[in-house]
Amino acid sequence: MSFDRRTLFTASAAAALAPALPALAQNQAQGAAAPSPATPFQAPGFYRFRLGGRVVTVVNDGFGRRPNPAQGFVRNAEPAAVEAALRGAFMPTAHLDIPYTVTVLETPQGLVLFDTGTGGQLGATAGNIPANLRAAGLAPEQVTLIVMTHFHGDHITGLTDAEGKPVFANAEIVVPEPEWAFWMDEGEASRAPEAMKGAFANVRRRFAPYQARIRRIAPGAEVAPGIRSIATFGHTPGHTSYLLADGDAQVMILGDVTNHPTFNLENPGWHLIFDMDAPMAEATRRRLFDQVATDRVRCVGYHFPFPANGHVVKEGSGYRLVPAPWSSAI
Amino acid sequence: MSFDRRTLFTASAAAALAPALPALAQNQAQGAAAPSPATPFQAPGFYRFRLGGRVVTVVNDGFGRRPNPAQGFVRNAEPAAVEAALRGAFMPTAHLDIPYTVTVLETPQGLVLFDTGTGGQLGATAGNIPANLRAAGLAPEQVTLIVMTHFHGDHITGLTDAEGKPVFANAEIVVPEPEWAFWMDEGEASRAPEAMKGAFANVRRRFAPYQARIRRIAPGAEVAPGIRSIATFGHTPGHTSYLLADGDAQVMILGDVTNHPTFNLENPGWHLIFDMDAPMAEATRRRLFDQVATDRVRCVGYHFPFPANGHVVKEGSGYRLVPAPWSSAI
Repeated sequence: MSFDRRTLFTASAAAALAPALPALAQNQAQGAAAPSPATPFQAPGFYRFRLGGRVVTVVNDGFGRRPNPAQGFVRNAEPAAVEAALRGAFMPTAHLDIPYTVTVLETPQGLVLFDTGTGGQLGATAGNIPANLRAAGLAPEQVTLIVMTHFHGDHITGLTDAEGKPVFANAEIVVPEPEWAFWMDEGEASRAPEAMKGAFANVRRRFAPYQARIRRIAPGAEVAPGIRSIATFGHTPGHTSYLLADGDAQVMILGDVTNHPTFNLENPGWHLIFDMDAPMAEATRRRLFDQVATDRVRCVGYHFPFPANGHVVKEGSGYRLVPAPWSSAI
Repeated sequence: MSFDRRTLFTASAAAALAPALPALAQNQAQGAAAPSPATPFQAPGFYRFRLGGRVVTVVNDGFGRRPNPAQGFVRNAEPAAVEAALRGAFMPTAHLDIPYTVTVLETPQGLVLFDTGTGGQLGATAGNIPANLRAAGLAPEQVTLIVMTHFHGDHITGLTDAEGKPVFANAEIVVPEPEWAFWMDEGEASRAPEAMKGAFANVRRRFAPYQARIRRIAPGAEVAPGIRSIATFGHTPGHTSYLLADGDAQVMILGDVTNHPTFNLENPGWHLIFDMDAPMAEATRRRLFDQVATDRVRCVGYHFPFPANGHVVKEGSGYRLVPAPWSSAI
C-alpha cells in the first residue's frame, strides 16, 4: 500500500491512468438531473445542544479574514513562531479566518442572546445571523434579553441595521457596568487615539436606540436565573464572560477570553493586538482556563471554529480545545 | 473571579439568587411569538469543502448507540483503560454514540457516493441520509457511482429500502474484488459462525438489485479520474480506502480504518470486536496513519464525529485527530 501524490496524483497523471467512466454511468448521468447545485451552498450554521433541561443554540455569523496573521497580529511572537502554530493546526499561513458565533439560550421567557454579531456591516464574509436564526426556527423578535460580553464592533454592530434601526424589537440589553463606564466616558473617548475613535462612535451609535432598556450589571451578578456574570477583564476594560447553569450542567460563554484557539488558547502568553490590556488579558485567560479545565466546564468561544464549543485541557505550557462531538440528536 | 457550581448553581440556588426578569422583558416575551420551537431540531447534517476544483459533501446518517463501551467492545483493553479514554475525551462512559457519515464527490458525470449508510433500517437514531442529501440540494437519482469501502451492514444497507428496492436508480456500484470474493463465497457463508450468518445474507440481499451494474476493482486501481483504491485490509478481508485527488489536493476516504477516533486512532493497538482480523487491521491502520500524518493528507472517517474530517497527527504512542475547521465559505 503506497501512494505518491507527486507522481500519481497530479490531475494529468490521474486522467491518463484512469479508465473512462463506464458507458452505463455516463449515459445515466446525462439522463439524470443536474449533478450538483450550480453554486454549492453550505449547511446553515446553527447547532443545538442541551444544558440540563434547557437548549442552547449556537449561531454562526460567518468570519472575518485577516491577511498575514504572522505579521503584526501577535505583539510578542516572532512571525516564524506564528507560522509554525498555523502549520501545526493545518491552517493556511497567508490569512486567518476568524469565525464569529453568537449563543442563544432558549428560556420560557424568550430567547437570551449573547452578543449580536456583525449585522452584515463589517465585511462580506459575515452577516449570516438572521438567515441562520431563521434556519433554526428562531426570530429576532423572540429575543427578550441580549447579554453583551464587551463592546468591540464584531460583538455589538448587529444590534442595529445600517440605518441605526434596532434589530431586536423586544430585547432588554444587559451590559457589564465597567465596560459601559469605559466606553461611554467622554474623557476616554476624547483621549482615545485616532484609530480608536471609530470604536467609541460605534458604541454610542449601536446602543442609542436601546437607551430605555439597558441594564448595567456588576461583576459576579446574576443576570437572570442560571446566568451569572464572570469578570474577565483585560481584552477590554470590562470584558465579561457568563456561566450558564441548569442543575449540575454548566456552560461558560467565554466571549473573547481567547481569539482563535490556535492563538491564545494554545499560546496563552501571546498578546494579540485586539487585547486592550494584554498582560491583564493573559492573566485572566490563564486563571479562567485553569478553572474550566479543572472543573471540566464546557465552553463556547466567540472565535472558535463553529460549532464553537468544547472542553479545555491543559497541554504543555498552554491549553488545547477538545471540540464537543456534533450529534444529530439534541 | 470564582464560581462554585455546587453552592451557587444548583437550579434552586440560582432561582433564589436571581432577580426576576424585568417587567419590560416579561411583557414583551408574552407579546412575542413562541420563544422556541416546540421540539428543538438539529441543523441538517451536511458539510461542503473543496478538493482542488471539486466539491466534497459529507453527509451524516445519524449514529448507533452502543451501551457500556468499556465492556467487551475492545478485546484487548481493560474496562478501566477504556473508561479513562472516554473521560479524557469528555465523552459519557455509559454509552458510545458511533456516528455514520457518507461522502459525496460532485463530478461533471454525476455524484460519486462512498458507502450508503443504514437506510434507516438499523435503528431509530440513524437513517438521515435522504433528508440530509435533500437539504444539500442533492438527490439519490443524481448518484451515478457508489464506491464501497467494505460490506458491513452500516455501510451497505442503504443500498436498498426495507422491501429490497434499489435506492439509487442510476448508480453503478464499485466494490473491492477481495471484499466481494469473501462475502459472496458460499463456502465462507456456510462456514460462518451463527452470529455472522445475517451479515452474509445482508450482503446478498443489498447487492441483488444492482447485479447488472457491479464493477469489481483490484487493490490500487483507479476507480474513476482522481479516485484511487488503497488496500486497507483487516477490518474486513477486502476493506478498502480511497484517495481522492484533484491537482495537488488530496482527501483520504478512510472507511473503517478506525472506528471512533477516541478508540483506535488514539489507541491504534486496541482491537475492536468489529475488526475481523484485528492484528492485520492494526498493522494497516498504523501504516496508513503514519503515511497520512507524514504527507498531511486530509482524511474523512466514516465513524468520526460530523463533519467527520480533519488531519491526523502522531501523538505519544498513537495519533490524534485535528478536526478541519468548519467554514461558512466553501
